[in-house]
Amino acid sequence: MTTTRPLEVALAYHHAWTAGDLDAAFSLVAPDVTCDAPAGRLGGADALRAFMEPFARTLTHTELLAAFGDDASAVLVYDTASRAVPSAPASELYEVAAGRIVAVRIIFDRLPFALVRGEVSRTPS
Amino acid sequence: MTTTRPLEVALAYHHAWTAGDLDAAFSLVAPDVTCDAPAGRLGGADALRAFMEPFARTLTHTELLAAFGDDASAVLVYDTASRAVPSAPASELYEVAAGRIVAVRIIFDRLPFALVRGEVSRTPS
Repeated sequence: MTTTRPLEVALAYHHAWTAGDLDAAFSLVAPDVTCDAPAGRLGGADALRAFMEPFARTLTHTELLAAFGDDASAVLVYDTASRAVPSAPASELYEVAAGRIVAVRIIFDRLPFALVRGEVSRTPS
Repeated sequence: MTTTRPLEVALAYHHAWTAGDLDAAFSLVAPDVTCDAPAGRLGGADALRAFMEPFARTLTHTELLAAFGDDASAVLVYDTASRAVPSAPASELYEVAAGRIVAVRIIFDRLPFALVRGEVSRTPS
């Protein structure tokens, strides 16, 4: 069954990528999607997939905390556990048109990931 | 007019604190509110206010990006500009009972704040 309702599209995308099925997830994403992520704007589905796929591969658990939508947009709030960070909640705000995600804003805390990856270190106090 | 609808309570809280009126904001927060923030759990309205008030004082701009609610909860997504960080989007998920916020989960990226405050530094690559 094909749906074009933004919340259903967002949930289908979310369930697919969190289950590791990036092909199914990105069948719901417009090729020219824009993504505002904490590090800046990612342009296009390939860039978004390159951002999401490595994280999806390390996911050990995910829990949907809230899901809302209207005629043009949807919001999901969810928690994740991954090998790197045991709890990393995130919120994604989607714009959906004709059954495809055309814009997404991803909000999460980069700090624990940056520490684990050694990109930053705590300053001695 | 008094409202008990979660989305209206959340919006009233948001508009109050972003306008710097912490007293009005916290009149909508239950004394024993629990807040899950990126750094961990804050217990009680006093702890939440101590967390929010310094940030509210430095706000220079805020923009509401999305607002949804149902009978028990609400989600806001918003961007902020502050003296420390020019763009810091956040998402807040509220549980509301009897017109008061009884739980809130705040999601935002701590990394730019931690860098500006000198709490962490970039690792030379």
